[in-house]
Amino acid sequence: MLKKILIANRGEIALRIVRACAEMNIRSVAIYTDPDRYGLHVKRADEAYFIGDDPLAGYLDPRRIVNMAVETGCDAIHPGYGFLSENAELARICAERGIVFIGPSADVISRMGDKTEARSSMIAAGVPVTPGTEGNLSGLDEAVEVAAEIGYPVMLKATSGGGGRGIRRCDSEADLRQQYPRVISEATKAFGSAEVFMEKCIVNPKHIEVQVLADSQGNVVHLFERDCSIQRRNQKLIEIAPSPQLTPEQRAYVGDLAVRAAKAVGYENAGTVEFLLAGNEVYFMEMNTRVQVEHTITEQITGVDIVREQILIASGRPLSYRQEDIQYRGYALQFRINAEDPKNDFLPSFGRITRYYAPGGPGVRTDTAIYTGYTIPPYFDSMCLKLIVWSLNWEDAMDRGMRALEDMRLQGIKTTAPYYKEILQHPQFRSGEFDTSFVPEHPELLNYSEKRHPSEVALAIAAAIAAYAGL
Amino acid sequence: MLKKILIANRGEIALRIVRACAEMNIRSVAIYTDPDRYGLHVKRADEAYFIGDDPLAGYLDPRRIVNMAVETGCDAIHPGYGFLSENAELARICAERGIVFIGPSADVISRMGDKTEARSSMIAAGVPVTPGTEGNLSGLDEAVEVAAEIGYPVMLKATSGGGGRGIRRCDSEADLRQQYPRVISEATKAFGSAEVFMEKCIVNPKHIEVQVLADSQGNVVHLFERDCSIQRRNQKLIEIAPSPQLTPEQRAYVGDLAVRAAKAVGYENAGTVEFLLAGNEVYFMEMNTRVQVEHTITEQITGVDIVREQILIASGRPLSYRQEDIQYRGYALQFRINAEDPKNDFLPSFGRITRYYAPGGPGVRTDTAIYTGYTIPPYFDSMCLKLIVWSLNWEDAMDRGMRALEDMRLQGIKTTAPYYKEILQHPQFRSGEFDTSFVPEHPELLNYSEKRHPSEVALAIAAAIAAYAGL
Repeated sequence: MLKKILIANRGEIALRIVRACAEMNIRSVAIYTDPDRYGLHVKRADEAYFIGDDPLAGYLDPRRIVNMAVETGCDAIHPGYGFLSENAELARICAERGIVFIGPSADVISRMGDKTEARSSMIAAGVPVTPGTEGNLSGLDEAVEVAAEIGYPVMLKATSGGGGRGIRRCDSEADLRQQYPRVISEATKAFGSAEVFMEKCIVNPKHIEVQVLADSQGNVVHLFERDCSIQRRNQKLIEIAPSPQLTPEQRAYVGDLAVRAAKAVGYENAGTVEFLLAGNEVYFMEMNTRVQVEHTITEQITGVDIVREQILIASGRPLSYRQEDIQYRGYALQFRINAEDPKNDFLPSFGRITRYYAPGGPGVRTDTAIYTGYTIPPYFDSMCLKLIVWSLNWEDAMDRGMRALEDMRLQGIKTTAPYYKEILQHPQFRSGEFDTSFVPEHPELLNYSEKRHPSEVALAIAAAIAAYAGL
Repeated sequence: MLKKILIANRGEIALRIVRACAEMNIRSVAIYTDPDRYGLHVKRADEAYFIGDDPLAGYLDPRRIVNMAVETGCDAIHPGYGFLSENAELARICAERGIVFIGPSADVISRMGDKTEARSSMIAAGVPVTPGTEGNLSGLDEAVEVAAEIGYPVMLKATSGGGGRGIRRCDSEADLRQQYPRVISEATKAFGSAEVFMEKCIVNPKHIEVQVLADSQGNVVHLFERDCSIQRRNQKLIEIAPSPQLTPEQRAYVGDLAVRAAKAVGYENAGTVEFLLAGNEVYFMEMNTRVQVEHTITEQITGVDIVREQILIASGRPLSYRQEDIQYRGYALQFRINAEDPKNDFLPSFGRITRYYAPGGPGVRTDTAIYTGYTIPPYFDSMCLKLIVWSLNWEDAMDRGMRALEDMRLQGIKTTAPYYKEILQHPQFRSGEFDTSFVPEHPELLNYSEKRHPSEVALAIAAAIAAYAGL
């Protein structure tokens, strides 16, 4: 069993991992750069080490992080999501230095990170993929040729891309000729590789992903699916588990596909297989070889602690569950509360949180590293809080989401919370039938008013008076 | 369906009811006395009305509360727990004025509130009760006679008592002769009735209670049991659902007994049937005709929202669940975080909360009306927060409890939280086998040290500097 884990991350996911370690009696080590000096993950870990003044560099330096793990006597590294979580180099250096990387092997990370290689693996395993190039495009001529064959619209995608970046839709040959050099340039800058491939553009698909767990003995189980169709510019906003729009047959089908995909590539640890659904067709999109931001909702419906399972798997333990042990109950929604102003084109709204009251009561979970007085630094992701709600049925879960969003007080910055309340009240969302076109097709949901509750104003005044009076 | 509910309570349970109303699209009305002017239940309700300067009088005046419900256009009153929740007078006035009382009828409240009448009803229904008097004691002579018959130790109990008050144990005839006038006097003062009865004292029982739901059509279901054996002077500290120490046969047996008890008295709405377990014997103790502080843990294991069900039942709806629909999963623990100093004989520790960070992450729920800057008034119950944890198995649930208690920052007052960490680490508690003697027999668990985490000190200093600098 692992004894001491370095957490190569920050914010809520670092805290999530600290919490799992605490529950498993494993010592946790945080790292932090200058803006995170007073971060909750630092405060809450058993040990914390400074890894540089630069806000980002320390979190992105695999060699330095592994050195620090060795120096502080850690036997493992948990990469969280983002940062180096899908960096094969980190996994490789870990292996060289005798540190357990809590995730799949460097080889699997590379193969799944290379989108064309991932496509080939899936084709070989009999998992359906979208029509498109077999490998990378050799140049614009091949691009035009393939596009003519599969039909417009098509997607140009950076082979090393991820997280919704390095992707362009092309609606015609003229469009393709214009976009092609841009994607090459973007891919080179963002991912250090000029390789791109092409897929048929599935118009307005549903985004369905399946959580898998795979141990070192070759056992693989799935934990059902999540519906991430509520997204803006490929960024997920609200995630739901299970999907309210799958039939039991579709659910079983995508679950089986995900297990088949994981087995085909010799996957180990937690991972997510993403699919696009269009009508009755299901297409493999990509596999994320790490814990996902939205793993929480799968935890809520299955009761399985995914981060705990990651650590157990990395410790060499066989899976705690057989497929038939894993049952889901009810519906969970996750709201990504981002420090952004939806009414101002979702412009980041960093700054000091002057007041934060966590929502609570039945069926409410929060994962966050913010607190009253915390200043959200401008260097990182804008997501500052994950609000998760659960209830036995879909209608009640939405009503609970609305209530929890109303419960929450988060002042000093703008957030996406009021926008989510509008989504929750929309009849199409409530019907449970929507796809990735929902957000772009409903710009009117941004026309909410921002008036504060009168009692909130009164309370703020009272608190100010009390503070002034030294009460 | 009810449309507007007056909540005749305060603090976390008032907030709990506001939340249920919000989720059901029912308008909520809070009432408050002077110390609760800035209470969260006031802030969060749709409407709030001042009910007097006296801290308590307004919450305890049934006629005034019903008048306020009528005046503000409410169609129902939810009494919460404590205060008037088991006051038949409130239910009676509600009935007279056409207001729905969210609870059983005045008649049932009276019958269950009268402990000797409750005993008689249970005997008639075939529910086992402890050996003792059939009705109230006529005087000391009868007390001595009955005690000789059933054997010492015996319990003298106020017939109108509840909440652990008006109860005395007598170990011998001499002891009984001494205690008898004291109980009479205490009962008269506390409950306005001099009537007492006698039961055999069950030495070191387990306290097991069963949650029931009963609708107006006569359907009754149980939601399994809670183990409340961890108590101090009859005050529950940590509650667990389901009990880790019942066999499946015992579980089914107490569940059936509770349903039989509720049916026998024509019960309606949510209620709790409390039992004492000693060896293989099960004895009815009392029925609480209201929502219980610890209803939360039943919600966690069953997924049923008990306050919602209360409101649906009061609206005349049939139960949402048949017995076979109700499944439990995992284990839940509730820690009653009281504003008390355990090391100083649990002396109340009211005052201003200088810092409160809610615990979060998987399997953690909080029900509280506190916030940073809130001053706990000295007039009410000392419970300031309910921390509830859930996990799929007993060991993990305890570890999660430990972690969540570590997560929580609650500064400015003393609380019972550090004491609970000691209990959680005790091998006997962890074994899941304990009875009501656990707390009195382990005074050594009060010898914890109160040193603060170094990072906590650093953070407090940093926050002070930031505040000073106006950051």
